[in-house]
Amino acid sequence: MAELSLYEALRTTRAVRRLRPDPIPDAVLARVLTAFTWGPSGGNRQPWRLLVVRAPHLKVKLQRMYQELWSEYVQASRAGLPSLPERSRARAERSLSAGDYLASHLGEVPVVVVVCFDPRGLAVTDAKLGRQSVVGGASIYPAVQNMLLACRAEGLGCVLTTLLCTRESEVRGLLGIPEPWATAAMVPIGYPVGRGHGPTSRRPLSALAFGDRWDEPLALACESE
Amino acid sequence: MAELSLYEALRTTRAVRRLRPDPIPDAVLARVLTAFTWGPSGGNRQPWRLLVVRAPHLKVKLQRMYQELWSEYVQASRAGLPSLPERSRARAERSLSAGDYLASHLGEVPVVVVVCFDPRGLAVTDAKLGRQSVVGGASIYPAVQNMLLACRAEGLGCVLTTLLCTRESEVRGLLGIPEPWATAAMVPIGYPVGRGHGPTSRRPLSALAFGDRWDEPLALACESE
Repeated sequence: MAELSLYEALRTTRAVRRLRPDPIPDAVLARVLTAFTWGPSGGNRQPWRLLVVRAPHLKVKLQRMYQELWSEYVQASRAGLPSLPERSRARAERSLSAGDYLASHLGEVPVVVVVCFDPRGLAVTDAKLGRQSVVGGASIYPAVQNMLLACRAEGLGCVLTTLLCTRESEVRGLLGIPEPWATAAMVPIGYPVGRGHGPTSRRPLSALAFGDRWDEPLALACESE
Repeated sequence: MAELSLYEALRTTRAVRRLRPDPIPDAVLARVLTAFTWGPSGGNRQPWRLLVVRAPHLKVKLQRMYQELWSEYVQASRAGLPSLPERSRARAERSLSAGDYLASHLGEVPVVVVVCFDPRGLAVTDAKLGRQSVVGGASIYPAVQNMLLACRAEGLGCVLTTLLCTRESEVRGLLGIPEPWATAAMVPIGYPVGRGHGPTSRRPLSALAFGDRWDEPLALACESE
Protein backbone atom coordinates (compact mmCIF):
# COMPACT_ATOMS: atom_id res chain seq x y z
CA MET A 1 0.00 0.00 0.00
CA ALA A 2 2.74 2.43 0.93
CA GLU A 3 4.12 2.13 -2.60
CA LEU A 4 1.10 3.72 -4.25
CA SER A 5 2.38 6.11 -6.92
CA LEU A 6 2.02 9.81 -6.36
CA TYR A 7 -0.14 10.47 -9.40
CA GLU A 8 -2.45 7.58 -8.58
CA ALA A 9 -2.87 9.00 -5.07
CA LEU A 10 -3.55 12.52 -6.35
CA ARG A 11 -6.06 11.28 -8.91
CA THR A 12 -8.05 9.10 -6.55
CA THR A 13 -8.12 10.87 -3.19
CA ARG A 14 -11.63 11.97 -2.54
CA ALA A 15 -13.89 12.87 0.36
CA VAL A 16 -14.84 9.61 2.11
CA ARG A 17 -17.55 10.18 4.71
CA ARG A 18 -18.74 6.63 5.44
CA LEU A 19 -16.16 5.24 7.84
CA ARG A 20 -16.04 2.00 9.81
CA PRO A 21 -15.34 1.95 13.56
CA ASP A 22 -12.44 -0.52 13.15
CA PRO A 23 -9.27 0.70 14.85
CA ILE A 24 -6.28 2.06 12.94
CA PRO A 25 -2.96 0.41 13.81
CA ASP A 26 -0.56 2.81 15.54
CA ALA A 27 2.13 2.37 12.89
CA VAL A 28 -0.33 3.34 10.15
CA LEU A 29 -1.59 6.33 12.10
CA ALA A 30 1.97 7.46 12.76
CA ARG A 31 2.76 7.42 9.03
CA VAL A 32 -0.35 9.41 8.21
CA LEU A 33 0.34 12.06 10.88
CA THR A 34 4.02 12.28 9.96
CA ALA A 35 3.00 12.97 6.36
CA PHE A 36 1.18 16.03 7.72
CA THR A 37 4.37 17.35 9.33
CA TRP A 38 6.18 17.23 5.97
CA GLY A 39 3.87 19.93 4.61
CA PRO A 40 5.26 23.38 3.82
CA SER A 41 4.63 26.50 5.90
CA GLY A 42 5.76 30.12 5.68
CA GLY A 43 9.35 30.38 6.94
CA ASN A 44 9.07 26.66 7.79
CA ARG A 45 7.55 27.72 11.11
CA GLN A 46 5.23 24.68 11.27
CA PRO A 47 2.58 26.65 13.19
CA TRP A 48 0.51 23.52 13.82
CA ARG A 49 -0.62 21.09 16.46
CA LEU A 50 -2.62 17.97 15.73
CA LEU A 51 -5.11 16.86 18.35
CA VAL A 52 -5.53 13.17 17.68
CA VAL A 53 -8.87 12.44 19.31
CA ARG A 54 -9.53 8.77 20.00
CA ALA A 55 -11.28 8.89 23.40
CA PRO A 56 -14.94 7.90 22.85
CA HIS A 57 -16.39 10.49 25.27
CA LEU A 58 -14.63 13.31 23.40
CA LYS A 59 -15.61 12.01 19.99
CA VAL A 60 -19.23 11.77 21.09
CA LYS A 61 -19.16 15.40 22.21
CA LEU A 62 -17.62 16.47 18.92
CA GLN A 63 -20.35 14.52 17.15
CA ARG A 64 -23.09 16.35 19.01
CA MET A 65 -21.72 19.74 18.01
CA TYR A 66 -21.05 18.59 14.47
CA GLN A 67 -24.49 17.09 14.07
CA GLU A 68 -26.23 20.34 14.99
CA LEU A 69 -24.12 22.31 12.50
CA TRP A 70 -24.55 19.66 9.84
CA SER A 71 -28.35 19.69 10.23
CA GLU A 72 -28.45 23.42 9.55
CA TYR A 73 -26.04 23.11 6.65
CA VAL A 74 -27.80 20.19 5.06
CA GLN A 75 -31.20 21.84 5.32
CA ALA A 76 -29.93 24.85 3.38
CA SER A 77 -28.14 22.62 0.86
CA ARG A 78 -31.14 20.31 0.26
CA ALA A 79 -33.29 23.38 -0.37
CA GLY A 80 -30.96 24.30 -3.22
CA LEU A 81 -30.98 20.85 -4.86
CA PRO A 82 -34.02 21.26 -7.18
CA SER A 83 -32.32 24.19 -8.95
CA LEU A 84 -29.27 22.07 -9.92
CA PRO A 85 -28.92 20.32 -13.28
CA GLU A 86 -29.76 16.61 -12.97
CA ARG A 87 -26.22 15.23 -12.94
CA SER A 88 -24.95 17.71 -10.36
CA ARG A 89 -28.07 17.12 -8.30
CA ALA A 90 -27.55 13.39 -8.13
CA ARG A 91 -23.94 13.93 -7.10
CA ALA A 92 -24.88 16.54 -4.49
CA GLU A 93 -27.54 14.21 -3.10
CA ARG A 94 -25.03 11.38 -2.72
CA SER A 95 -22.60 13.71 -1.03
CA LEU A 96 -25.24 15.04 1.40
CA SER A 97 -26.36 11.55 2.25
CA ALA A 98 -22.74 10.53 2.93
CA GLY A 99 -22.49 13.64 5.09
CA ASP A 100 -25.58 12.52 7.03
CA TYR A 101 -23.81 9.23 7.64
CA LEU A 102 -20.70 10.96 8.93
CA ALA A 103 -22.71 13.26 11.20
CA SER A 104 -24.51 10.32 12.79
CA HIS A 105 -21.37 8.13 13.14
CA LEU A 106 -18.64 10.59 14.02
CA GLY A 107 -18.46 9.32 17.58
CA GLU A 108 -17.55 5.84 16.33
CA VAL A 109 -14.91 6.88 13.80
CA PRO A 110 -11.61 5.57 15.21
CA VAL A 111 -9.62 8.80 14.86
CA VAL A 112 -10.72 12.41 14.60
CA VAL A 113 -7.85 14.81 13.96
CA VAL A 114 -8.48 18.40 14.99
CA VAL A 115 -5.95 20.59 13.21
CA CYS A 116 -4.87 23.56 15.33
CA PHE A 117 -2.75 26.53 14.32
CA ASP A 118 -1.04 29.48 15.92
CA PRO A 119 -2.13 32.72 14.22
CA ARG A 120 1.14 34.33 15.37
CA GLY A 121 3.02 31.96 13.09
CA LEU A 122 1.22 33.07 9.93
CA ALA A 123 2.37 35.74 7.47
CA VAL A 124 -0.94 36.94 6.09
CA THR A 125 -0.18 38.98 2.97
CA ASP A 126 -3.85 39.45 2.06
CA ALA A 127 -5.01 40.74 5.44
CA LYS A 128 -5.56 44.31 4.30
CA LEU A 129 -7.13 43.93 0.88
CA GLY A 130 -10.74 44.50 1.88
CA ARG A 131 -11.72 41.01 0.73
CA GLN A 132 -11.97 37.63 2.44
CA SER A 133 -8.47 36.65 3.57
CA VAL A 134 -7.26 33.16 2.67
CA VAL A 135 -3.46 33.34 2.74
CA GLY A 136 -3.13 32.19 6.36
CA GLY A 137 -4.37 28.84 5.06
CA ALA A 138 -1.27 28.54 2.85
CA SER A 139 0.70 27.47 5.94
CA ILE A 140 -1.90 24.93 7.07
CA TYR A 141 -3.88 23.21 4.32
CA PRO A 142 -0.99 21.91 2.21
CA ALA A 143 -0.04 19.85 5.27
CA VAL A 144 -3.65 18.72 5.69
CA GLN A 145 -3.64 17.58 2.07
CA ASN A 146 -0.47 15.55 2.73
CA MET A 147 -2.34 13.76 5.50
CA LEU A 148 -5.36 13.06 3.28
CA LEU A 149 -3.09 11.65 0.57
CA ALA A 150 -1.29 9.44 3.08
CA CYS A 151 -4.69 8.13 4.23
CA ARG A 152 -5.42 7.24 0.61
CA ALA A 153 -2.15 5.31 0.41
CA GLU A 154 -3.03 3.42 3.60
CA GLY A 155 -6.51 2.46 2.43
CA LEU A 156 -8.06 4.82 4.96
CA GLY A 157 -11.02 7.04 4.21
CA CYS A 158 -11.02 10.66 5.37
CA VAL A 159 -12.49 14.05 4.62
CA LEU A 160 -11.42 17.63 5.27
CA THR A 161 -14.19 19.38 7.20
CA THR A 162 -14.32 22.91 8.56
CA LEU A 163 -17.88 23.17 9.85
CA LEU A 164 -16.78 22.78 13.47
CA CYS A 165 -14.70 25.97 13.30
CA THR A 166 -17.99 27.84 13.73
CA ARG A 167 -18.06 26.57 17.32
CA GLU A 168 -14.37 26.98 17.97
CA SER A 169 -14.72 28.30 21.51
CA GLU A 170 -16.63 25.18 22.56
CA VAL A 171 -14.11 22.91 20.83
CA ARG A 172 -11.34 24.83 22.55
CA GLY A 173 -12.98 24.22 25.92
CA LEU A 174 -13.58 20.54 25.24
CA LEU A 175 -10.03 19.79 24.09
CA GLY A 176 -8.15 22.29 26.26
CA ILE A 177 -6.80 24.34 23.34
CA PRO A 178 -5.17 27.48 24.82
CA GLU A 179 -5.50 30.98 23.39
CA PRO A 180 -4.47 32.15 20.84
CA TRP A 181 -4.30 28.71 19.20
CA ALA A 182 -7.22 28.14 16.86
CA THR A 183 -8.82 25.37 14.81
CA ALA A 184 -8.50 25.03 11.04
CA ALA A 185 -10.08 21.66 10.30
CA MET A 186 -11.51 18.44 11.62
CA VAL A 187 -10.47 15.32 9.71
CA PRO A 188 -12.24 12.06 10.62
CA ILE A 189 -10.16 9.04 9.58
CA GLY A 190 -11.19 5.39 9.35
CA TYR A 191 -11.45 2.43 7.03
CA PRO A 192 -14.18 3.02 4.45
CA VAL A 193 -17.57 1.33 4.60
CA GLY A 194 -17.72 1.06 0.81
CA ARG A 195 -15.11 1.39 -1.90
CA GLY A 196 -13.72 4.53 -0.33
CA HIS A 197 -11.47 6.57 -2.58
CA GLY A 198 -11.71 6.51 -6.35
CA PRO A 199 -11.41 8.80 -9.38
CA THR A 200 -12.35 12.39 -8.63
CA SER A 201 -14.88 14.32 -10.65
CA ARG A 202 -13.59 17.71 -11.77
CA ARG A 203 -13.99 20.16 -14.62
CA PRO A 204 -11.36 19.72 -17.35
CA LEU A 205 -8.10 21.63 -17.11
CA SER A 206 -9.09 23.78 -20.10
CA ALA A 207 -11.98 25.18 -18.03
CA LEU A 208 -9.76 25.95 -15.04
CA ALA A 209 -6.55 27.30 -16.55
CA PHE A 210 -5.70 30.28 -18.74
CA GLY A 211 -2.55 31.08 -20.68
CA ASP A 212 -0.75 34.22 -19.50
CA ARG A 213 -3.80 36.41 -19.02
CA TRP A 214 -7.41 35.91 -17.94
CA ASP A 215 -9.67 34.33 -20.58
CA GLU A 216 -6.74 33.55 -22.88
CA PRO A 217 -6.69 29.85 -23.75
CA LEU A 218 -3.82 27.81 -22.37
CA ALA A 219 -2.31 26.24 -25.46
CA LEU A 220 -0.62 22.99 -24.53
CA ALA A 221 0.43 20.58 -27.25
CA CYS A 222 -0.64 17.59 -25.14
CA GLU A 223 -3.16 17.50 -22.34
CA SER A 224 -3.27 14.64 -19.88
CA GLU A 225 -6.85 14.49 -18.73
CA MET B 1 9.57 9.78 -12.74
CA ALA B 2 5.80 9.63 -12.79
CA GLU B 3 5.99 6.44 -10.76
CA LEU B 4 7.51 8.10 -7.72
CA SER B 5 5.79 6.69 -4.64
CA LEU B 6 3.44 8.91 -2.71
CA TYR B 7 5.38 8.78 0.55
CA GLU B 8 8.67 9.53 -1.18
CA ALA B 9 7.05 12.56 -2.81
CA LEU B 10 5.57 13.79 0.48
CA ARG B 11 8.86 13.31 2.32
CA THR B 12 11.03 15.10 -0.21
CA THR B 13 8.98 17.99 -1.62
CA ARG B 14 10.55 21.18 -0.46
CA ALA B 15 10.73 24.83 -1.44
CA VAL B 16 13.06 25.08 -4.44
CA ARG B 17 13.86 28.69 -5.29
CA ARG B 18 16.82 28.35 -7.67
CA LEU B 19 15.26 27.49 -11.01
CA ARG B 20 16.77 27.18 -14.48
CA PRO B 21 15.25 28.98 -17.49
CA ASP B 22 14.97 25.73 -19.51
CA PRO B 23 11.46 25.23 -20.90
CA ILE B 24 9.00 22.70 -19.47
CA PRO B 25 7.52 20.31 -22.06
CA ASP B 26 3.78 20.85 -22.53
CA ALA B 27 2.91 17.28 -21.57
CA VAL B 28 4.77 17.66 -18.27
CA LEU B 29 3.14 21.01 -17.55
CA ALA B 30 -0.29 19.57 -18.34
CA ARG B 31 0.23 16.76 -15.82
CA VAL B 32 1.32 19.19 -13.12
CA LEU B 33 -1.64 21.53 -13.68
CA THR B 34 -4.11 18.66 -13.89
CA ALA B 35 -2.86 17.44 -10.51
CA PHE B 36 -3.96 20.82 -9.15
CA THR B 37 -7.50 20.29 -10.42
CA TRP B 38 -7.76 17.00 -8.51
CA GLY B 39 -7.55 18.89 -5.21
CA PRO B 40 -10.57 19.01 -2.91
CA SER B 41 -12.75 22.08 -2.37
CA GLY B 42 -15.86 22.82 -0.32
CA GLY B 43 -18.90 21.34 -2.07
CA ASN B 44 -16.48 20.39 -4.91
CA ARG B 45 -17.04 23.88 -6.29
CA GLN B 46 -13.46 24.16 -7.64
CA PRO B 47 -13.44 27.94 -7.12
CA TRP B 48 -10.10 28.29 -8.95
CA ARG B 49 -8.44 29.58 -12.08
CA LEU B 50 -4.79 29.06 -12.87
CA LEU B 51 -3.04 31.80 -14.79
CA VAL B 52 -0.13 30.03 -16.42
CA VAL B 53 2.23 32.89 -17.16
CA ARG B 54 4.92 32.13 -19.73
CA ALA B 55 5.12 35.40 -21.71
CA PRO B 56 8.48 37.03 -20.89
CA HIS B 57 7.14 40.61 -20.68
CA LEU B 58 4.56 39.57 -18.07
CA LYS B 59 7.07 37.55 -16.05
CA VAL B 60 9.45 40.49 -16.03
CA LYS B 61 6.70 42.75 -14.65
CA LEU B 62 5.83 40.19 -11.99
CA GLN B 63 9.51 40.03 -11.10
CA ARG B 64 9.74 43.81 -10.61
CA MET B 65 6.82 43.78 -8.17
CA TYR B 66 8.07 40.68 -6.43
CA GLN B 67 11.60 42.03 -6.10
CA GLU B 68 10.42 45.16 -4.30
CA LEU B 69 8.34 43.15 -1.86
CA TRP B 70 11.12 40.63 -1.36
CA SER B 71 13.66 43.39 -0.58
CA GLU B 72 11.47 44.69 2.22
CA TYR B 73 10.78 41.21 3.52
CA VAL B 74 14.39 40.09 3.42
CA GLN B 75 15.61 43.21 5.17
CA ALA B 76 13.28 42.55 8.08
CA SER B 77 14.19 38.85 8.11
CA ARG B 78 17.98 39.43 7.97
CA ALA B 79 17.65 41.81 10.92
CA GLY B 80 16.21 38.95 12.95
CA LEU B 81 18.94 36.43 12.07
CA PRO B 82 21.44 37.19 14.88
CA SER B 83 18.85 36.30 17.51
CA LEU B 84 18.35 32.77 16.09
CA PRO B 85 20.20 29.71 17.40
CA GLU B 86 23.15 28.82 15.14
CA ARG B 87 21.57 25.89 13.31
CA SER B 88 18.32 27.70 12.55
CA ARG B 89 20.32 30.76 11.54
CA ALA B 90 22.36 28.87 8.98
CA ARG B 91 19.18 27.35 7.55
CA ALA B 92 17.39 30.71 7.47
CA GLU B 93 20.39 32.29 5.74
CA ARG B 94 20.39 29.61 3.04
CA SER B 95 16.68 30.08 2.53
CA LEU B 96 16.98 33.89 2.27
CA SER B 97 19.82 33.59 -0.18
CA ALA B 98 17.78 31.18 -2.32
CA GLY B 99 14.94 33.71 -2.08
CA ASP B 100 17.31 36.42 -3.36
CA TYR B 101 18.08 34.17 -6.30
CA LEU B 102 14.38 33.70 -7.08
CA ALA B 103 13.66 37.42 -6.79
CA SER B 104 16.40 38.26 -9.27
CA HIS B 105 15.57 35.44 -11.74
CA LEU B 106 11.76 35.26 -11.65
CA GLY B 107 11.49 36.77 -15.13
CA GLU B 108 13.48 33.85 -16.57
CA VAL B 109 11.65 31.05 -14.79
CA PRO B 110 9.80 29.14 -17.55
CA VAL B 111 6.39 29.06 -15.86
CA VAL B 112 4.85 31.23 -13.17
CA VAL B 113 1.45 30.01 -12.02
CA VAL B 114 -0.76 32.65 -10.44
CA VAL B 115 -3.48 30.87 -8.47
CA CYS B 116 -6.77 32.77 -8.53
CA PHE B 117 -9.94 32.07 -6.57
CA ASP B 118 -13.52 33.25 -6.43
CA PRO B 119 -14.40 34.37 -2.89
CA ARG B 120 -18.08 33.64 -3.65
CA GLY B 121 -17.20 29.95 -3.93
CA LEU B 122 -15.80 29.70 -0.41
CA ALA B 123 -17.67 28.63 2.72
CA VAL B 124 -15.75 30.50 5.40
CA THR B 125 -16.75 29.00 8.74
CA ASP B 126 -14.24 31.06 10.72
CA ALA B 127 -15.21 34.46 9.33
CA LYS B 128 -16.86 35.71 12.51
CA LEU B 129 -14.55 34.47 15.25
CA GLY B 130 -12.67 37.71 15.86
CA ARG B 131 -9.37 36.11 14.84
CA GLN B 132 -7.47 35.82 11.57
CA SER B 133 -9.59 33.77 9.18
CA VAL B 134 -7.88 30.89 7.39
CA VAL B 135 -10.70 28.51 6.37
CA GLY B 136 -11.16 30.00 2.90
CA GLY B 137 -7.75 28.53 2.17
CA ALA B 138 -9.11 25.01 2.76
CA SER B 139 -10.65 25.13 -0.72
CA ILE B 140 -7.47 26.39 -2.39
CA TYR B 141 -4.19 25.26 -0.85
CA PRO B 142 -4.78 21.49 -0.88
CA ALA B 143 -4.94 21.82 -4.67
CA VAL B 144 -1.78 23.95 -4.67
CA GLN B 145 -0.04 21.23 -2.68
CA ASN B 146 -1.11 18.65 -5.28
CA MET B 147 0.62 20.77 -7.91
CA LEU B 148 3.81 21.08 -5.84
CA LEU B 149 3.90 17.31 -5.32
CA ALA B 150 3.39 16.69 -9.04
CA CYS B 151 6.33 19.04 -9.74
CA ARG B 152 8.41 16.92 -7.40
CA ALA B 153 7.45 13.79 -9.33
CA GLU B 154 8.43 15.47 -12.60
CA GLY B 155 11.83 16.62 -11.37
CA LEU B 156 10.65 20.22 -11.37
CA GLY B 157 11.48 22.70 -8.62
CA CYS B 158 8.78 25.03 -7.30
CA VAL B 159 7.79 27.04 -4.26
CA LEU B 160 4.51 28.30 -2.85
CA THR B 161 4.78 32.09 -2.46
CA THR B 162 2.15 34.56 -1.28
CA LEU B 163 4.13 37.81 -1.10
CA LEU B 164 2.62 39.13 -4.33
CA CYS B 165 -0.88 39.07 -2.83
CA THR B 166 0.06 42.32 -1.11
CA ARG B 167 -0.05 43.99 -4.51
CA GLU B 168 -3.09 42.15 -5.78
CA SER B 169 -4.71 45.11 -7.51
CA GLU B 170 -1.59 45.63 -9.66
CA VAL B 171 -1.39 41.92 -10.46
CA ARG B 172 -5.07 42.00 -11.35
CA GLY B 173 -4.46 44.85 -13.77
CA LEU B 174 -1.43 43.19 -15.32
CA LEU B 175 -3.10 39.83 -15.91
CA GLY B 176 -6.66 41.03 -16.52
CA ILE B 177 -8.15 39.28 -13.48
CA PRO B 178 -11.78 40.50 -13.09
CA GLU B 179 -13.46 41.40 -9.81
CA PRO B 180 -14.23 39.67 -7.50
CA TRP B 181 -11.62 37.04 -8.42
CA ALA B 182 -8.56 37.29 -6.22
CA THR B 183 -5.04 35.86 -5.97
CA ALA B 184 -4.00 33.20 -3.46
CA ALA B 185 -0.47 32.28 -4.52
CA MET B 186 2.29 32.60 -7.07
CA VAL B 187 4.12 29.38 -7.83
CA PRO B 188 7.26 29.64 -10.01
CA ILE B 189 8.07 26.30 -11.65
CA GLY B 190 11.24 25.21 -13.41
CA TYR B 191 14.02 22.67 -13.42
CA PRO B 192 16.26 23.14 -10.39
CA VAL B 193 19.72 24.70 -10.60
CA GLY B 194 21.05 22.39 -7.90
CA ARG B 195 19.76 19.17 -6.39
CA GLY B 196 16.29 20.59 -6.04
CA HIS B 197 13.98 18.66 -3.76
CA GLY B 198 15.23 16.50 -0.92
CA PRO B 199 14.36 15.45 2.63
CA THR B 200 12.45 18.12 4.52
CA SER B 201 13.51 19.41 7.90
CA ARG B 202 10.69 19.37 10.45
CA ARG B 203 10.15 18.99 14.16
CA PRO B 204 9.36 15.41 15.19
CA LEU B 205 5.76 14.26 15.28
CA SER B 206 5.86 14.04 19.07
CA ALA B 207 6.39 17.82 19.20
CA LEU B 208 3.50 18.54 16.83
CA ALA B 209 0.79 16.10 17.89
CA PHE B 210 -1.15 15.53 21.10
CA GLY B 211 -3.35 12.64 22.13
CA ASP B 212 -7.00 13.56 22.68
CA ARG B 213 -6.44 16.84 24.49
CA TRP B 214 -3.88 19.64 24.40
CA ASP B 215 -0.54 18.80 26.03
CA GLU B 216 -1.43 15.13 26.45
CA PRO B 217 1.21 12.94 24.82
CA LEU B 218 0.15 10.99 21.76
CA ALA B 219 0.97 7.42 22.68
CA LEU B 220 1.69 5.43 19.54
CA ALA B 221 3.28 2.01 19.80
CA CYS B 222 5.40 2.66 16.72
CA GLU B 223 6.43 6.00 15.28
CA SER B 224 7.73 6.29 11.74
CA GLU B 225 10.04 9.30 11.79
